[in-house]
Amino acid sequence: MRNVQQKLSVARGEQPADLFFQNANLVNVLSGEIHLTGVAVDDGRVIGLGDYEAAKVIDLQGAYLAPSLIDGHFHVESSMLTAPEFARAVVPHGTGAVVIDPHEYANVLGLDGIRYVLESSKNLPVDFFIMVPSCVPATPFETAGAQLTADDLRRMMADERIAGVAELMNYPGVYLGAESELAKIAAGKGKIIDGHAPGLRGKNLNAYVLAGVRSDHESTEREEAREKLRLGLHLLLREGSTERNLTSLIPLISPHNAANCSFATDDKLASDLVSEGHIDHAVRKSIQHGLLPMTALQIATINTARHYRLRNYGAIAPRFWADFIAFDDLKNFTVRQTYKKGILVAENGKYLARQPAPVPLPRSTMNLRYQPGDLEVPALGGGKIRVIEIVPNQIVTREIIETPKVADGRMVADLDRDILKLAVLERHRATGNVGVGFVRGFKLKRGALGSTVAHDAHNVIVVGTNDADMIRAIQELERLQGGQVAVADGEVKAELGLPVAGLVSDQPLGEVIQRIASLNAAAHEMGCDLESPFMALSFLSLSPIPELKLTDQGLIDAVHLQRTSLFA
Amino acid sequence: MRNVQQKLSVARGEQPADLFFQNANLVNVLSGEIHLTGVAVDDGRVIGLGDYEAAKVIDLQGAYLAPSLIDGHFHVESSMLTAPEFARAVVPHGTGAVVIDPHEYANVLGLDGIRYVLESSKNLPVDFFIMVPSCVPATPFETAGAQLTADDLRRMMADERIAGVAELMNYPGVYLGAESELAKIAAGKGKIIDGHAPGLRGKNLNAYVLAGVRSDHESTEREEAREKLRLGLHLLLREGSTERNLTSLIPLISPHNAANCSFATDDKLASDLVSEGHIDHAVRKSIQHGLLPMTALQIATINTARHYRLRNYGAIAPRFWADFIAFDDLKNFTVRQTYKKGILVAENGKYLARQPAPVPLPRSTMNLRYQPGDLEVPALGGGKIRVIEIVPNQIVTREIIETPKVADGRMVADLDRDILKLAVLERHRATGNVGVGFVRGFKLKRGALGSTVAHDAHNVIVVGTNDADMIRAIQELERLQGGQVAVADGEVKAELGLPVAGLVSDQPLGEVIQRIASLNAAAHEMGCDLESPFMALSFLSLSPIPELKLTDQGLIDAVHLQRTSLFA
Repeated sequence: MRNVQQKLSVARGEQPADLFFQNANLVNVLSGEIHLTGVAVDDGRVIGLGDYEAAKVIDLQGAYLAPSLIDGHFHVESSMLTAPEFARAVVPHGTGAVVIDPHEYANVLGLDGIRYVLESSKNLPVDFFIMVPSCVPATPFETAGAQLTADDLRRMMADERIAGVAELMNYPGVYLGAESELAKIAAGKGKIIDGHAPGLRGKNLNAYVLAGVRSDHESTEREEAREKLRLGLHLLLREGSTERNLTSLIPLISPHNAANCSFATDDKLASDLVSEGHIDHAVRKSIQHGLLPMTALQIATINTARHYRLRNYGAIAPRFWADFIAFDDLKNFTVRQTYKKGILVAENGKYLARQPAPVPLPRSTMNLRYQPGDLEVPALGGGKIRVIEIVPNQIVTREIIETPKVADGRMVADLDRDILKLAVLERHRATGNVGVGFVRGFKLKRGALGSTVAHDAHNVIVVGTNDADMIRAIQELERLQGGQVAVADGEVKAELGLPVAGLVSDQPLGEVIQRIASLNAAAHEMGCDLESPFMALSFLSLSPIPELKLTDQGLIDAVHLQRTSLFA
Repeated sequence: MRNVQQKLSVARGEQPADLFFQNANLVNVLSGEIHLTGVAVDDGRVIGLGDYEAAKVIDLQGAYLAPSLIDGHFHVESSMLTAPEFARAVVPHGTGAVVIDPHEYANVLGLDGIRYVLESSKNLPVDFFIMVPSCVPATPFETAGAQLTADDLRRMMADERIAGVAELMNYPGVYLGAESELAKIAAGKGKIIDGHAPGLRGKNLNAYVLAGVRSDHESTEREEAREKLRLGLHLLLREGSTERNLTSLIPLISPHNAANCSFATDDKLASDLVSEGHIDHAVRKSIQHGLLPMTALQIATINTARHYRLRNYGAIAPRFWADFIAFDDLKNFTVRQTYKKGILVAENGKYLARQPAPVPLPRSTMNLRYQPGDLEVPALGGGKIRVIEIVPNQIVTREIIETPKVADGRMVADLDRDILKLAVLERHRATGNVGVGFVRGFKLKRGALGSTVAHDAHNVIVVGTNDADMIRAIQELERLQGGQVAVADGEVKAELGLPVAGLVSDQPLGEVIQRIASLNAAAHEMGCDLESPFMALSFLSLSPIPELKLTDQGLIDAVHLQRTSLFA
């Protein structure tokens, strides 16, 4: 590595640079122009625009050269990929940096989960910046693997890759001034405080902002987003696998407010990242919906870098990292080449970087205690019961009241009425907690589906037509040290091991995508017609979201945030 | 002062706010819109937009309400006003904050000068943020009152009103990697490093940026400014008393790059601040020259606040200081009312704030040692001499070669050829240094002009037709403890005392303007036809600027930066 004197000498043109990108149509997000120039790179940074001598010359032949793209808010666990395999998925799409909230890791592993992400995401062609999760556990109605206090948050802030405090989902706690939430905001002093306030408007939104929150990614309606922009919240325009808000929000964006906007995915599946793209998809879609290409590319680069204070990211000028994308068409924006610190790391969809040696997996997180009989529900009295009803493709559920089917003195699944048994087993500290309930919407005709991905505490969740297959699924999840399985007639039909915290696979991208497809196929073969059966399953324990959820502590009335009884 | 809980309660509307500004046409520089709303203020900050109850309601009747204006780069000494009297001049023009470089104070008083500015600018209706001067002394060819090292700079950085390191005028030192200059940049780590690089372009400009500089205010040509923008320098669009670059630079600015622009005055006289205006003048002129009002107002507010990391300045939204301006017309932008932390501090040109109790003046800075005979120049040999020629309204001078007029064996002024005697006397540490030379351009027919404002070391500078009046002027400057005087026939014709470091008056704004006018009138009456005789005088010792200058160390060849002889 050269010292400052040497770098300045290279910039002055007195000795050759490492690399020279010539004939670039530079998308200059600083001057707001596209202009033909050369770009000299040395020691991984841009050292000058203009004409330079260099050890290696790359002729761009008039192609556009823009800064690599940045995702302003992402939960990397939603891809079920380790950081290096996530890089494999997104680098060909031009991603150079991501601001992540390792909320799921933290719910399972606490600070160890955050440290694992920091460690496993080093030296990749995507730089990871981390917001420290602010809501672990999400509610007192589920048993998570860890709890993060304001002191824990403060302890993490010194690391330069920590960009601030992650989404403050307990937004009533914030605007009502709960000491715990204000302490978390204070812990992030000098860094960025991310928000999460779906539907919050008016005076309570004013209070939420006044408390110190600086961003929001939950606006689905344009007028809600407009109000948030007006109040000074940085607007993360979300386009993920399920939540897709771009079409609604783009008409709001102008060059006069784009500085306060970023693109974000929040949650996106590995298969969608590969086939549809990442932030490049948001840029493409925004341009198609009328945004000026310069505006879209500023949002995707410098505006996000500035908001999160990623000081040398998001532009092509002296001092900035040489994170570039090359492409041929502003309208049908498709990344042809991705460079990281000047090195070609993807070309024409192909990932060219060498994967680093894997870091040790975090400790085992499968710590279950249960008896087969734990899934049984005695049919006491003859009353009706509360049943969770799935709303396809949404994280909300409905509460319906049904008469249970009874066999041998026990409540059982009723395939005719699509009422299946659902169980959540605590897996972090062997409490023996088991919650059992019933759910409508899966339409399984046989077998069981099980998963250790179950928001937000990520206990074991199993849905099934019979206890034997449910137990078999749980046993297989234990054997895998976390994962997702489809079991029928005592036999594992498909499975994906998720040994990293029970959330993430240790396998390569292609293998993960293929196994997820096999799992979905198996579920469909067993009668389920949901598009994403395991995603639907994972949201059934998300206790902060209405109406009825099941956690290891039993049924939760998520409207009034209190425990409730199976018996209606 | 309310605690956080109480403030949130006010924001939620549960108790009345201090103030409510109703029926505002809010210039929302965050959302890039103008929209009708109310603004609630409590404890000096905005706590919400919308409808609120308040102890006091201010009906704006549809007037525009915008954030107060910010000057991105100003030397307050150029106004010759103390901070409170500067506030009196600019607050009626809508200024709410200034980023100043107390370069002149520092040259005279060192860190004490910076501390004096910090202290004397507290609790004013204009907030002062300070860049610590980086070039004290400017060159080794003049004797300043102090020297600031990188360690001195580092020592100041912790204060939250210190925004960074002031303009790095030794730009060759920076791009050539001089250790002293790199150390000053390093001292500003985490804060902003201001630049000053007139005419610098190409590879050396790349190196200047790479070294860590973040802004420039010296572009006079559009293409120079464009290049600086492209390289990531924040562009300070300068419009001062003498340097006026707006007309040239405005065509460069668009909503796609305005985030990287600020308005700045650099140097502006008290009389110009009062009559023409301050940043409001830049906004008005920019709009007249085609800038969109929203763009101009963003440049004048949030863009500058963000660049200098003035976290709660430059916008009207929860958490921001309630620094507002009200006005009626976007095209002929004229500030009607100025509010500081919600309090009306100026209306229709009238300053309404109470001036704070004056802080103690810094120590005396007049420490001269001289003999009347020091001004005499023996006529050795019969050779020609170097004479400084003034270029009206510019800080550059020319070197001309003339035959001196001799009387009684001494060189003397020659009124017919407009060759007057010029002397610079060191005044900081009684070294007894006296530089004597000759100057063309003042056209005085009698008397002498003297000043303790003489860039950058601010020694005593005197020009005159005869030694007796020059000595009388020096004596009067000593009596005043610094100032500016016009003397003729042994009599003081006009004077302005500048007891604050010999740079700034302790008198009110109106008195200062009137005395400056009297000084100019006296000079004109004595035959001078320069528009600003004392400003011209003050630049004759500015040793870094070509071609020929006079300091206490004698004549300086400012092209080759070396001492030179009177004898050609």
